[in-house]
Amino acid sequence: AWKGAPEFTAEGGWRFKPRGRMQFDAASVGNPNGNIPTANLGFNSRSRRILFGFEGDVPGGIKWRAEFDFAQGGVGYEDVMFQYAPKGSPVSAQFGYFYPFQGLETMSSSGATTFIERAQMTDAFVHSRRIGAAVGYVQGDLRFNAGLFNDSINANFDNDDWMFGSRLVWSPEALGGRIHLGATYQHREFQSNALNFQYRARPFVQTTDVRFTDTGLVAARGDDIYGIEAAGIFGPLHVASEAQWVKTDTIANPATLTGIESVAGGTAFAGNADFFSWYAEAGWWLTGETRGYRDGSWQRTSVKKGFDKGGWGAVGVNLRYDYLDLRDRVATGTPATSFAAPNFVNGGTQTGYLASLIWQPIDYVRFMAQYTRAEIEGGPRAAVVVPGSTAPIPDRDYGVDIFAVRAQFEF
Amino acid sequence: AWKGAPEFTAEGGWRFKPRGRMQFDAASVGNPNGNIPTANLGFNSRSRRILFGFEGDVPGGIKWRAEFDFAQGGVGYEDVMFQYAPKGSPVSAQFGYFYPFQGLETMSSSGATTFIERAQMTDAFVHSRRIGAAVGYVQGDLRFNAGLFNDSINANFDNDDWMFGSRLVWSPEALGGRIHLGATYQHREFQSNALNFQYRARPFVQTTDVRFTDTGLVAARGDDIYGIEAAGIFGPLHVASEAQWVKTDTIANPATLTGIESVAGGTAFAGNADFFSWYAEAGWWLTGETRGYRDGSWQRTSVKKGFDKGGWGAVGVNLRYDYLDLRDRVATGTPATSFAAPNFVNGGTQTGYLASLIWQPIDYVRFMAQYTRAEIEGGPRAAVVVPGSTAPIPDRDYGVDIFAVRAQFEF
Amino acid sequence: AWKGAPEFTAEGGWRFKPRGRMQFDAASVGNPNGNIPTANLGFNSRSRRILFGFEGDVPGGIKWRAEFDFAQGGVGYEDVMFQYAPKGSPVSAQFGYFYPFQGLETMSSSGATTFIERAQMTDAFVHSRRIGAAVGYVQGDLRFNAGLFNDSINANFDNDDWMFGSRLVWSPEALGGRIHLGATYQHREFQSNALNFQYRARPFVQTTDVRFTDTGLVAARGDDIYGIEAAGIFGPLHVASEAQWVKTDTIANPATLTGIESVAGGTAFAGNADFFSWYAEAGWWLTGETRGYRDGSWQRTSVKKGFDKGGWGAVGVNLRYDYLDLRDRVATGTPATSFAAPNFVNGGTQTGYLASLIWQPIDYVRFMAQYTRAEIEGGPRAAVVVPGSTAPIPDRDYGVDIFAVRAQFEF
Repeated sequence: AWKGAPEFTAEGGWRFKPRGRMQFDAASVGNPNGNIPTANLGFNSRSRRILFGFEGDVPGGIKWRAEFDFAQGGVGYEDVMFQYAPKGSPVSAQFGYFYPFQGLETMSSSGATTFIERAQMTDAFVHSRRIGAAVGYVQGDLRFNAGLFNDSINANFDNDDWMFGSRLVWSPEALGGRIHLGATYQHREFQSNALNFQYRARPFVQTTDVRFTDTGLVAARGDDIYGIEAAGIFGPLHVASEAQWVKTDTIANPATLTGIESVAGGTAFAGNADFFSWYAEAGWWLTGETRGYRDGSWQRTSVKKGFDKGGWGAVGVNLRYDYLDLRDRVATGTPATSFAAPNFVNGGTQTGYLASLIWQPIDYVRFMAQYTRAEIEGGPRAAVVVPGSTAPIPDRDYGVDIFAVRAQFEF
Repeated sequence: AWKGAPEFTAEGGWRFKPRGRMQFDAASVGNPNGNIPTANLGFNSRSRRILFGFEGDVPGGIKWRAEFDFAQGGVGYEDVMFQYAPKGSPVSAQFGYFYPFQGLETMSSSGATTFIERAQMTDAFVHSRRIGAAVGYVQGDLRFNAGLFNDSINANFDNDDWMFGSRLVWSPEALGGRIHLGATYQHREFQSNALNFQYRARPFVQTTDVRFTDTGLVAARGDDIYGIEAAGIFGPLHVASEAQWVKTDTIANPATLTGIESVAGGTAFAGNADFFSWYAEAGWWLTGETRGYRDGSWQRTSVKKGFDKGGWGAVGVNLRYDYLDLRDRVATGTPATSFAAPNFVNGGTQTGYLASLIWQPIDYVRFMAQYTRAEIEGGPRAAVVVPGSTAPIPDRDYGVDIFAVRAQFEF
Repeated sequence: AWKGAPEFTAEGGWRFKPRGRMQFDAASVGNPNGNIPTANLGFNSRSRRILFGFEGDVPGGIKWRAEFDFAQGGVGYEDVMFQYAPKGSPVSAQFGYFYPFQGLETMSSSGATTFIERAQMTDAFVHSRRIGAAVGYVQGDLRFNAGLFNDSINANFDNDDWMFGSRLVWSPEALGGRIHLGATYQHREFQSNALNFQYRARPFVQTTDVRFTDTGLVAARGDDIYGIEAAGIFGPLHVASEAQWVKTDTIANPATLTGIESVAGGTAFAGNADFFSWYAEAGWWLTGETRGYRDGSWQRTSVKKGFDKGGWGAVGVNLRYDYLDLRDRVATGTPATSFAAPNFVNGGTQTGYLASLIWQPIDYVRFMAQYTRAEIEGGPRAAVVVPGSTAPIPDRDYGVDIFAVRAQFEF
């Protein structure tokens, strides 16, 4: 068979297929009020991902995948794992490096998103792959996954952090299309010699490292993340929405830490901080395609009449509202300090209004153009961007315009 | 089909092929007069390139290629791009990471060169791949390419430099063989927070980082490069020559720079510096092969009777003269400073007399041996290498002998 | 054919096959007496190896292989080389990056070892691949290899170190099974601007960088390594043992070094230090398999009745004794300094008692569990771990328990 690249099979259930994806992005991120002294805003281009790898099946119910990202002059990782899924059994087990089941956007391929980057929650709450072991259960339209995970693939020797990740999805056919409902729960314990965590999000593109929302390092032992998902696919129309709540387990008094833990660092807050993010989107394939979906996540959309068949390919438009709140009052302080640590986390809020246009001349080639208006309130840049205001820093508002395009090829 | 590695095809125009090349070099670079205190001259060996990747065709006129260089303990890049070339149309478009059309040597495969490294101009004028978009036009023996490019693939966020690159080639059959005539033009604008550039060349091998010609960082906004090419293939004989002129747009007074530009750095010169390089070579395949050429660049030479057919493979000899001039008087100064900044750029000149012997036992395996005599005049090492002279530093001469061998396998 | 992944062949002798291996390890290394203040002992997990590459044959007697290790966020190397082995001739030549023939454990695939890591001698005496050229001679059950090597694949320009490596193996069928007898000799000359070497070993796993045995940098010009090997395979039983002696050529008075050599560094010792390591192991495949062996090294064991055939796969147990001695008295000193430099090298000794359990549900999947008791005498940690003792530091004893598991998939 041929799926963008040749897929090889052999008797007994063997399968082997190369995988790859290249994404080149160009974007312009506005410098709010021209007040941030940096060359890292404005125009930039980059290879967002250059993925290469392989996947296959082995007789006896084993599926594996190993894929690397060579985009930034180094080695990054997509899924590197193998799974044991015995034929006819609803139960499976998997080992290696993969996502701890953190929600619809996070668990879907970066080649199949409706916008250039995933929703802010993935970036802000640091949903990333980890080394772990997990079990899965699938029965009809219901699927449940849960696993225990250590840290990322890295060269460090002090990885004693761990997490539990789980997700429940129900995706029946209904209302003349398909409905997706999901819930996720994650519990994370941070590394004992680095008891802190940083919540922050880029402005809807990855061509800059300037973030308008950022809590800085928060002294904490761990956190819990609760998420809900809902989506629907009705012919060329799709709608989707997710919400996630983070409850941090902060360290109010780092001076009480001893031994390895005492080197932790991070800003101490007087109470546990809560953060929140949600988005809602709708999209239409003007050329009549149906958004790809399978096994609880978005998939590549198949083009109805591509260039190779004399057509013009698939054209789609999408709109999204995406909100992130990294501000939280964790204690009541005296007036002078009430909007700063240890009483207030001023990570800021960021609201995105996104519109994207997608063109897939054929199944494996995709061009995207996206405009985003980001509205920021407070956060680490508010004092510099809005210097004259008498409002407390966490209440100062400003906006940024972001234009971005992507060229993508995958197989 | 099989081309060193299997080439897979499928109905409709699908194609997929692995690519790879390994080059192991050993070389000895003389330490002139024994006066340079370094362990980086003398003998060294290295994996020059260890390339791996894939290329393919997709129905509808799309060709793609992605190849990485893993030779130095990190990730480097060869072409990572896809092209839309509709069947029957002379026009094509390409996106991704590729060479901005800088001349015959630069645009030819590193596996098909007649000497271990490309001519000095590629190294000295920093002809390297960039992220960009380009168009092509091919009509018979005429081909034209032009594109706009940003920066290299890297992890930086301040890439606002850009360049325009273009090349015109005419390659008709003539005089009982084939003639190649070409012209190139590049315009480069440097990064606004790094308004400088360094022109320099290694001594004809890459096993040392000691350069005898080097301008250091020159404060400049950009440059223009003009090039001409001529070559001919007549049976087992080939001749080739290229010349390139660089016109820099220097910054005479960096103190006038403001904002992001003010961090630029680099030595200021009182006028625009001009640099130049050219080479001429001739080669003979003693065993009767014809040097590979296609689409405006050199290709791998096919062996007439290889090891696999009981023969001895292909044996060729090549001679090259290669001149680089990185010296320039940009202003008339007082006697005391007339040979130094801001009046004189003492990058030095380097003249190479090269002889190489190539043995290809079969198409995909190649051994090379090369002797080079390099004559240097001036440049950053002249004062140390020739300490006793009363001549101005830019006029002091010395020479270096370089021996090098390569073992290469590719597919 | 299919060997975990598809193997492609074509007329004339072409062959091409992808290669890969992923190993995920989790281990817990005890902190002796709780006295070492580090987060790098205790629990850790890591991707030990994530290998990817290709191998093939080319008509005319050429075999090649190129494989990379992407496990630690960078690029590492397995074999990257090509070989000329004319059909019917006992002589072969090879070029590139490969092991300099250092013994049975070192020359065997990391996917086919009986314990999670190779015996200590590989780690302690730094048996690693190098760029080189070698010849081989095979006649019946006898094989001999020897080569000259430069340094590792790296980005450095000062690699003037070199080594000679050789190995002789005789492996006849005998005693109702197969006998393996081998001898190795290596001579190494260190880099002229780094005339020193460090001998050290991790505690039987690679999930920590804490080493209990370590000589530190020893000022030396080079060393010689002598090794002997013996093994036997008798149905499901195998036994194996190796011993290696290192003779260092130390620099007693670094002040006499001049020029590039004078920057050498390392602790000076008054005489040439000798180090030693040996191990002995026995293993049984409870399910009746025979340990894989071919061409002088261990190979993957073929499972008799795997998951894919309704069986339970292969289960084996192994026991090993592994001893390393990095202590040496090199001169007779006054009492006060007799157990320290320049008279005594206190690298310590480490004795391992290892037991492993292997389960291969099918040929290409393997799970391992291992318990190790390590007994250490002296070495760089003895003073901290056993602070109260009145014994000389090199005679202080302590022990560590190490638990480790591995999940492996390869093709």
